[in-house]
Amino acid sequence: MRLALELASTATMATSPNPKVGCVLVKDGEIVGSGCTQPVGQAHAEVMAIRDAVSRGKDMRGATAYVSLEPCSHFGRTPPCVNALIEAGVARVVAALKDANPQVAGRGFAMLREAGIEVEDGLMATEAREMNLGFFKRMETGLPWVRLKMAASLDGFTALPNGSSQWITDAAAREDGHRWRARADVILTGIGTVLADDPRLNVRLPGGSEQPSFQPRKVIVDSQLRTPIGAQILKNSKATLFHATRDVEVERHLIDFGVDLHCLPERQQDARTQVNLPEVLLALGQQQINEVHVEAGAKLSGALIEAGCVDELLLYLAPKLLGQGASMFALPELQKVDQAKNLIIHEVKQVGEAIRVLARFHVV
Amino acid sequence: MRLALELASTATMATSPNPKVGCVLVKDGEIVGSGCTQPVGQAHAEVMAIRDAVSRGKDMRGATAYVSLEPCSHFGRTPPCVNALIEAGVARVVAALKDANPQVAGRGFAMLREAGIEVEDGLMATEAREMNLGFFKRMETGLPWVRLKMAASLDGFTALPNGSSQWITDAAAREDGHRWRARADVILTGIGTVLADDPRLNVRLPGGSEQPSFQPRKVIVDSQLRTPIGAQILKNSKATLFHATRDVEVERHLIDFGVDLHCLPERQQDARTQVNLPEVLLALGQQQINEVHVEAGAKLSGALIEAGCVDELLLYLAPKLLGQGASMFALPELQKVDQAKNLIIHEVKQVGEAIRVLARFHVV
Repeated sequence: MRLALELASTATMATSPNPKVGCVLVKDGEIVGSGCTQPVGQAHAEVMAIRDAVSRGKDMRGATAYVSLEPCSHFGRTPPCVNALIEAGVARVVAALKDANPQVAGRGFAMLREAGIEVEDGLMATEAREMNLGFFKRMETGLPWVRLKMAASLDGFTALPNGSSQWITDAAAREDGHRWRARADVILTGIGTVLADDPRLNVRLPGGSEQPSFQPRKVIVDSQLRTPIGAQILKNSKATLFHATRDVEVERHLIDFGVDLHCLPERQQDARTQVNLPEVLLALGQQQINEVHVEAGAKLSGALIEAGCVDELLLYLAPKLLGQGASMFALPELQKVDQAKNLIIHEVKQVGEAIRVLARFHVV
Repeated sequence: MRLALELASTATMATSPNPKVGCVLVKDGEIVGSGCTQPVGQAHAEVMAIRDAVSRGKDMRGATAYVSLEPCSHFGRTPPCVNALIEAGVARVVAALKDANPQVAGRGFAMLREAGIEVEDGLMATEAREMNLGFFKRMETGLPWVRLKMAASLDGFTALPNGSSQWITDAAAREDGHRWRARADVILTGIGTVLADDPRLNVRLPGGSEQPSFQPRKVIVDSQLRTPIGAQILKNSKATLFHATRDVEVERHLIDFGVDLHCLPERQQDARTQVNLPEVLLALGQQQINEVHVEAGAKLSGALIEAGCVDELLLYLAPKLLGQGASMFALPELQKVDQAKNLIIHEVKQVGEAIRVLARFHVV
């Protein structure tokens, strides 16, 4: 199962909206075939493992299939993996956990059992779920998993009073940040960041490809349609822009430029009209987005947290003291400490010189 | 050696200004005696181990002594441990590292070798040094090791805008904080904290004693002599107060109350007279203080950092977001990030729900 999970982790995000799954076929203590989910529309892990065994001339009859998720039971973009496993003649299937997809959700296991195949599940379920957090959350709630990245000094500042922030974190932390971008389906930012920094927000890994086919889609929250056509963020991959006010001419320009526009207005207490953030998530969920990676300023980041739209913080704390400057999240003033947003520390580790904290707003 | 270090760690801070040392006597693979440094003026670890072997009727002739620091070679408050080891007839001494005390510093090893005893050193030297960081720093520089404790939310705030800070950290983090207080020789704070919170700043451990003999001394930085006679901090242990302005009447009151006063003025750029912080450290070093534990507000903490007086931060980051409020350290405004004070992350771990960070301003 550990190998199946390792294989799953090698599947690129191009599998999305499908989960990343790994499968290992074992017969008489020997691995006879293995595989992981291919890009969407292509073969799932089980089929890849079977093909691997066939190409190696191995006999799969009576084998055990270790698979990091319940095999699918429905005709989607590909035929059901359950059928493939039955036809291959495997005797036993050990799955990490049940599929959350309502089209499967136990039916895969039932079909295998009906065919006389022994089924076990629950082996390394936590690890398997972590690998597909977004898929599980979307299947269960219709919403994507939202991870919000922020980098700050050890005393909590993201920039100096004069706005300077280059570089608070070192190259190792920035590279690690790109790995998190790479596992997301979309990278979400706000108009404030677009106008202030004009970032590309694409995935740049050492030795890695910058091929557009592997670049997560960009999502911009831009209530007043202020994104310039020349913005870097519009250049390398498809972009979706959520806005709150209308301007037919600007909208036509953006559409002509290939930007996908959605107007989701919400009237604020101060009478301004802003993008309705929970509806942004709903829209992304409907577009089968599993994981959202947010890199935005204190204002949008704070608004997303305040609206309950964030599942997880990915925080890089650099071993520096700035003393004063810009704070991480714009949140309403509290009167008592027990009104604070509480998190659960999921993981803390050193990345380069910095401390990386993964903290969640709820138990998964 | 691991056992010797464990024994050393059980020695109370009452050993100070002596280092905490452990000694284990091994003969033919059997532990024949062990001990650790007793409170100052009483027996050192080697003598305790020898006495232990004697009381157990064990023969030490030809034994190996594992000791977490070079045995002392001079007549101080007690006779040299080297003599005791020679008289006991040990054949070999394995020490973690050389004593930094200029009265010893290799002379212990030399005397043992002259007596025909085999000597090795360097085994677990890092761990042995960590246990006596303050002793080593004072022996090498004349100054104590200064550890500054701070507790904040994950987004870097120590209190809400209205000043409320109870409780940012949970009971586990606060208890851990008391353990750090317990290993220090003195607890240093500022008049701001005394006036705002009237803290006791003593060591309170679950099931532990609050005996005055085990309470670290309190040190107050109070430039204008504003500490009230009724302050809690003056009640449970001896207090030393550093001030910058004179007021004969107030000084007499404080002295009558048992407070040890030192006037160390320094003219500031804004013409105010404040306590000269580097001279405070020098004075504490002269008083044979090894470890200083600072719990103060942003102002004194920032001033100590700015003056280069802090070796290490002990930071508790609670998994909460406050959004806005009081920041950790009052430091001068920077123009570029590379002017920031840099730290080295020494250790990161979870304590209760919080993250505990030990970060140092220099390599030890």
